This record gives sequence, C-alpha cells and structure tokens, in this order.
Amino acid sequence: MNATSLRAARTALRDTAPLVHCLTNTVVQTITANALLAVGAAPAMVDEPKEAAEFAAIASAVLVNVGTVHERTAEAMLLAARSAGTAGTPWVLDPVAVGGLGFRTGVAAELADIGPTVVRGNASEVMALAGAGAGGRGVDSTAAADDALEAAAVLARRTGGVVAVSGAVDLITDGVRTVRVGGGDQLLTRTTGAGCALGALVAAYLAVTDDPLTGAVAAHAHVALAASAAARRAPGPGSFAIAWIDALDALTADDLAEADVRTVA
Amino acid sequence: MNATSLRAARTALRDTAPLVHCLTNTVVQTITANALLAVGAAPAMVDEPKEAAEFAAIASAVLVNVGTVHERTAEAMLLAARSAGTAGTPWVLDPVAVGGLGFRTGVAAELADIGPTVVRGNASEVMALAGAGAGGRGVDSTAAADDALEAAAVLARRTGGVVAVSGAVDLITDGVRTVRVGGGDQLLTRTTGAGCALGALVAAYLAVTDDPLTGAVAAHAHVALAASAAARRAPGPGSFAIAWIDALDALTADDLAEADVRTVA
Amino acid sequence: MNATSLRAARTALRDTAPLVHCLTNTVVQTITANALLAVGAAPAMVDEPKEAAEFAAIASAVLVNVGTVHERTAEAMLLAARSAGTAGTPWVLDPVAVGGLGFRTGVAAELADIGPTVVRGNASEVMALAGAGAGGRGVDSTAAADDALEAAAVLARRTGGVVAVSGAVDLITDGVRTVRVGGGDQLLTRTTGAGCALGALVAAYLAVTDDPLTGAVAAHAHVALAASAAARRAPGPGSFAIAWIDALDALTADDLAEADVRTVA
Repeated sequence: MNATSLRAARTALRDTAPLVHCLTNTVVQTITANALLAVGAAPAMVDEPKEAAEFAAIASAVLVNVGTVHERTAEAMLLAARSAGTAGTPWVLDPVAVGGLGFRTGVAAELADIGPTVVRGNASEVMALAGAGAGGRGVDSTAAADDALEAAAVLARRTGGVVAVSGAVDLITDGVRTVRVGGGDQLLTRTTGAGCALGALVAAYLAVTDDPLTGAVAAHAHVALAASAAARRAPGPGSFAIAWIDALDALTADDLAEADVRTVA
Repeated sequence: MNATSLRAARTALRDTAPLVHCLTNTVVQTITANALLAVGAAPAMVDEPKEAAEFAAIASAVLVNVGTVHERTAEAMLLAARSAGTAGTPWVLDPVAVGGLGFRTGVAAELADIGPTVVRGNASEVMALAGAGAGGRGVDSTAAADDALEAAAVLARRTGGVVAVSGAVDLITDGVRTVRVGGGDQLLTRTTGAGCALGALVAAYLAVTDDPLTGAVAAHAHVALAASAAARRAPGPGSFAIAWIDALDALTADDLAEADVRTVA
Repeated sequence: MNATSLRAARTALRDTAPLVHCLTNTVVQTITANALLAVGAAPAMVDEPKEAAEFAAIASAVLVNVGTVHERTAEAMLLAARSAGTAGTPWVLDPVAVGGLGFRTGVAAELADIGPTVVRGNASEVMALAGAGAGGRGVDSTAAADDALEAAAVLARRTGGVVAVSGAVDLITDGVRTVRVGGGDQLLTRTTGAGCALGALVAAYLAVTDDPLTGAVAAHAHVALAASAAARRAPGPGSFAIAWIDALDALTADDLAEADVRTVA
C-alpha cells in the first residue's frame, strides 16, 4: 500500500464512474447514494428479488448491508451476492448489528459463506460474524478495533477476502497483510449512515482496483480525510454531514496520497 | 414540572446515551436517527417481525410510528409494543395520519390498547385516536392543539399514559396535569420528519426520567428551543433542518431549564 | 406557455397548498417531501395497497415512481393510478431505470396504459417506455434529451398526456406542442433524488393548473431556476442539495416568469 496506488485508485474512480448496486438499509440510502455521487461513482438501489441478480451481474460492484433486512430483502441480497460471485463482480458485506439479533445474524452468516470480497463492520460486528463475540449494542460497537484483529484475520482467511474493522483507527486485513488507517473524526459516529456509506465507497473502489486490500484502504482513507476536513468547518453534527459530502467530492488524488495509512504486518 | 427536573433530564440523556428502538416510517428514518444522535441517544431501526420483540426487550425505549405502516411492519410494531409492555420499557406511539385512512387507524387503535407510555401527535391525530374527530388532511392537522385538549385527556386516562399534542403551543397531559410548551418555529412544520423525530426524542427522554410527563415535556422543550435557535440562523427550510440538528446537539441542561413550560392544570 | 401562466401557477401553488400523494422510492422520500414542502405543497407518502386507492381519491395529485418498486408497492401503485384516473386526479409516472430491468419495466408499462397525466424521466427511460430504446445504465441516461424527442411525442399521443424528458435542456411535449426549459445546473445530477423530486413538483403544479403542459413546464422551470441559484452559493454537492431546498422555497412568481422557456413546435 503506497501513495502511488492510492493516487491511482482515486483517479480511476473519478474517470470510470463505476455503477455500484446497493442493497442497503432504508435509514441510510440517501447518504449512501449522495456519498457515491460525491466521490464520482453511480449508485443504484435495487433490492427486489426479481431484479437483484439481474442487476448485480451488470453492476461494477455490489454492496450488501443488512441494517434493516427482512424476508424479501434477504432473498434479494442472497441472489445478488451469488450473482456477483458468478460474474466475478466484487461485493461488500456490511453485517450491521449482527450478533445481537438472530434473524440477521443467520442471513449474514449465509452471505459470508458466499465469499464477500470485503467484509466491513465495527469490532463487535466483525467479532460476532467470526464467531468470536456476542455482538454490540444495536449498531454501536462495544469493542475497539484492535480487539477484533484476530477475529478479522480468521474471518478473512475463511471468506478468502478482506476484512475491514472501523474504529478510531481502522484495521484492514486480508489475513496476511494488515493496514491501519488513521485520521477521521468522532463526528462520523454521530452521523447516521456514515459507516454504511463507507461500505458503499469500499465497493466503488473495489471496482477500480485490482487488489481488494488497496481498494478497501483507499475507501477508508478517503472517508477519514473528508471527515477531518469537514470537522474543521462544521459547528455541529448536522452541518458536518453536509460538509462531509462536499469534502468527499473535493478530495483529489494528491490528497488521498497523503492519507495516514500504515502497513503493520 | 420545574427547571431542576428539566436540567436533570438533559444531563441524564447525555450521560446515559439510551438505546432507542425505532419502528418508524421510511420518509423520516434519517432525520430521526440524526436527531437522536444529536441529543446524545443511540438510535436503532429494527422493524422485521422476527427481530422486533427481541430488540424491544433490550432497548432503553421504543418508538412506534405508523406513517408508512404496512402488513409486515404492523406485525413488528405490535410485537415490539407488547414486548416493551412486558419488559416495562417505556414506548411512544405516533399515530401519523390516523383517522383518514382505515388500515392505519385500525393498527393505531390496536397499539393504543396495549398502553403506550406516551402518545404524540397533532390535534387531528389525537382527536381521531380518541374517537373525537375524523382526522386531518394527510399528515397535516386541521385543528389547533387546544381543540384536542379534552380528547387528549380522555385518551390519557384510557391508555394510562401521557398524551402530547403538537402545535404552535404544545399541550401535554396525563389526564390530570396539563403542561404547555411554547417556543419553536413554524419552519418545523416545513421540515419533513421534525414531528416524527420529536416522537423519538420523547422516547429517549422517557428512558432517563421516572415521570413520563416530565420526559415528554423535556423532549418538546428541547425541540422547541433548538428550532428557535435554528430559525435565527437559517435562510430557508433546507438550511433550517441542518441548523436544527446542530442546535439539538448544542442545547445544554441550562438552556433546557429556560424553556417556555407552563403547568396549566 | 407564457410568463403570465407561469406566474399564475406559482401563485396558485403557494395559495392552495395541494396535497400530493407520493408512491415513490425509499432513497428519495425525504428530499421529495422537503421539496414539496419548500414550494408550498403538502406531501404524504402512502404506499400500502390497503390505503393507496383511498388516499389517491382525496389527494390533489399523485406521484408514482418505480425506483425501488417491489410486489407490494407495485400493487399499491396500480391501485393509486386507477383511483386517480377514476377521480379525475392528475398523476405523474416516473419510470426510473425502466428498460434495463424486466420487473419494473412491466410494472411501468402497465401504469402507462392507465394514462398518466405526465410521464417524467430521462431520455433513456422515456425511450424505453415508448419502446424505442433499451434503457440506460441504472438510473443514468445514456442518451441526450433531444434523442428522445420522437419517442416522447409517440408516448404522449399513446397515453393522451404530456411527456417530459429531463436533460441539460428539458423537453416537454403533449405530442403536438413542444417546450424546452433551459437553466438548471449539473449539480442536480449529483444530488440523489433531485429528478425524483422534480416528478413530485410536476404533480404539485398539475393540481393548480388546468393545462398539464403548463403545469409540467412550471415545475421544470422552478427546479432549474432554484438549481442555478443554489449552485451560485454552494461549494459542493452536499451544500448544493440544502441550498436547492432553500431556493425552491424562495422562488417567487416573478422569478418563475423569467424562466428560460421556449416553445419550439
């Protein structure tokens, strides 16, 4: 992971405008779509089972987020994930609040078995999905990112993909290499959907990078840098969310190359 | 209701970050979650029937809002309300547009029979739920809060809880005591979801106060003061909604103690 | 189409606050409701089949947008459209992403057969609905508005209504007369739901004008002028979306009379 690959990823995202198929929760669809548009990607939310497999096959990348999953959308998510797998399309699993609730925990486990290119969650969610913890409190993690390092590595080796753990410092691992991404701002945790939108940006970057670890790191760095910039301008969480979208848009390839990214293993 | 209890409620909300389980309409989920985060609570939207009872039992408070209710979410709402009742968890019923539409009117009546800790609505909705009026025009009230005073008192005695009627001046009653909350701004009525978010803030305050009347008043006062502050800064309804979230966050315990709250009966 | 009729439409919208029944996708419900409130209309989102026909019959206008349509909402949309037709209530069809996906393309064709007062879409969507093209890439058009002129005229004559094609310059036709609306800003395409909200504003204007072509033109001109004003103030797409809502509210009847509207055939 170096400045050159980050710079190239940002440029490729802007140049190719990947189509990101999102099956995500109803709380965060708007900020997710606006974050994708801001970085230069093209969002489309399609979660009807009759359309999900068809659309996943033509998308550049797919996001599956179980935040408000129910019977119909669970079916659409499984169809989309399998279709992405068959088509060789990269896809991201965001196991929101997994661990504490039986239904979504089962759906997420089934999705994880299909082999997501990247799993992105907080420490509690990643530990629960890896079978190493009981889950957090609703959507909040009750553990720090570092607590989930071993579980993340285990999960990455099991899925054959990358696992990203969001926290004050993000941890991203493919089971062998591990990268830390610093920066960001605490206001991200007070903006509903910022973490979910990050999952979508991971999908967007996967579409324009050959190496999933690089794609995941680029997305986390992009979000963190934009958050730092937004926090400098915003007097509170409402204006922060708006300034963050502006900053996602404004961030250049050179900016991304300056991110606080450290390979630690 | 006095300044001391309002100050204590605001402090307790910030200190304990109650987990508010929201089963609410899809139009307002984002602003509801952001308003809860702004005041210091932790939102979680869970409306799948397989998860609703399980989650209501572990939440600090529950909000049930029938704005876009349909078969599946109606089932989840009934399960969550009964689970909250059994667990002794406070819960709020927001009977959006009840009266004019048969399906939701039936669902809301069934929910009211379970005994919500607080019912929060506009005058038309409260009158319709109490059986004293035909409902408003869509989500708008065609009556003033004072018109609903008697209906609110009747409904409060029937449910054994508190009933809050939103208007230019809000009326909040437990069937014996009645409190008026002034302030606020007309721009609240031009921001989609501000009233629905108020229902969620009532739930958050119920989680940190022993007296439901105090909790309901604190939430209404918090929203009104933040609206007044936001209106001074915002040139229009778009920027008002953002400034209101900032103001919900900024409001201190001392600010809340200065609210325009008058016990009238 | 002249300045007088545009001025009258804006005044009537503000004076009568039409109730717009929206059956629209979950990504854009918030911005749609806020845009309607900003221009002076009253939004209500009702998409439960048990309520859709009942509500469409009492609404001033109806919007049907298939962006995230599924089995239940498709049923509600067909019921609402038929109810509006029977009641003589104007209604708008927005065929989001039609052409590329089988299920929604079928639903949209069935809706078009009911005879929408106005169809509003991008060039790819209009061409696909008219049977003259294969659809775009997700929600994005792969064609310019002018490419869809003939398809729009064919579709207008088939439905007996007006067809509006959004683009850098919008084209609006009833199959005989064609009007171009200029202005606007490219940032509209980077704000999720701006096009969908435009569909809702068309519905609002239809409720206050006798001539559907005038209503459709007024809505497009209103959106374009507000976008130009917002773009002058906003540093990025996040702040643009907020400034656009403020500008929708601020736009006067005299402002609308100055719109870049040209009758071309």
